[in-house]
Amino acid sequence: MADAGRPRNGRSPDRWQEILEAASALFYAQGYHATSMQDLADAVGLQKGSLYHYLRSKEDLLFPLIQQTLQGYVDDLEAIAGAGGSAAERLRRAVTAHVERVARFGDMMTVFISEGRHLKPEEQERVRALADRYRQMLEGLIREGVESGEFRTPDPALATLAILGACNWLPQWYRPGGRAAPAEIAGVFMDLFLKGLEPRS
Amino acid sequence: MADAGRPRNGRSPDRWQEILEAASALFYAQGYHATSMQDLADAVGLQKGSLYHYLRSKEDLLFPLIQQTLQGYVDDLEAIAGAGGSAAERLRRAVTAHVERVARFGDMMTVFISEGRHLKPEEQERVRALADRYRQMLEGLIREGVESGEFRTPDPALATLAILGACNWLPQWYRPGGRAAPAEIAGVFMDLFLKGLEPRS
Repeated sequence: MADAGRPRNGRSPDRWQEILEAASALFYAQGYHATSMQDLADAVGLQKGSLYHYLRSKEDLLFPLIQQTLQGYVDDLEAIAGAGGSAAERLRRAVTAHVERVARFGDMMTVFISEGRHLKPEEQERVRALADRYRQMLEGLIREGVESGEFRTPDPALATLAILGACNWLPQWYRPGGRAAPAEIAGVFMDLFLKGLEPRS
Repeated sequence: MADAGRPRNGRSPDRWQEILEAASALFYAQGYHATSMQDLADAVGLQKGSLYHYLRSKEDLLFPLIQQTLQGYVDDLEAIAGAGGSAAERLRRAVTAHVERVARFGDMMTVFISEGRHLKPEEQERVRALADRYRQMLEGLIREGVESGEFRTPDPALATLAILGACNWLPQWYRPGGRAAPAEIAGVFMDLFLKGLEPRS
């Protein structure tokens, strides 16, 4: 987050990053809409008046937080896809990292679906570019597997969207401390994506 | 939609159903937020003033439309799951029907994610009950397959959520008239869910 962390008119960049992190935690714990500027001020130990030196409203956090969240997914996948190992092993690591991120930052995904239209056009474009980059890398990994004979699918692009959708739907049902931990969820998902429901004879 | 279609203080139930259908079409074509009461009045050939006899604002349409949409999914799946055929064949029909519905009414899913918090608590509960009923039926179908030996998975509940997520994520990327038709998308998804990416020797 080079953009979000830069000094802004003499205000402390550390404090700005601290506000972003506190906002991310609050949005996750109680939801974007239920979080007030007062909650945010309390969380970072500022008077509400001082918080307004950093942002006019919580809407100002939408773009930096959505961008930071997506950038995290992209960074993970870049590291995983570029590392060694079979396509199946890298896909397993990618799905595990994705599920773990959704479990940790889930609300930003729902916030993006519901509030994304409030972003400026150039912000929407940057968010879209990051999301596209992620999808293309995942598709590239699946295509690599198909080319090496490790995978088969009639349509790598649509298979990618199915896998992405399964992972991105998590915030709609996942609750921390629930029956299954993220690594276990990723394991069952990968079993489905690699082996399918039909038993192998 | 017995509730939504009932006569309301002498207002025409046919007209109310007509408004629901027009709203559904408009929300799908241009999105919930971009649709005005004027658009809606134009679509059903009413003066804006007359439209207000039926609803105070488009928020009044949220619950009936979300309920109607979910009830459609539940009705489809009840018919499919209860019919004859192998578990794989019924799952294929269920996924196809689901993808076709999302492709047709996709925006209501996004609207529910973003606007669901504006529903009254008892409305949220009814929506949740319908969504639960759907998920349980799909899980029941997968469990049936596991019990008969037709399917295998380490966790039918999580496998169900993966399949559901893949289908429900469609509105985030599907565009009518795009590269793949709903039946084709469902076919590739089912290939992934039944056979997996790893080739069978």
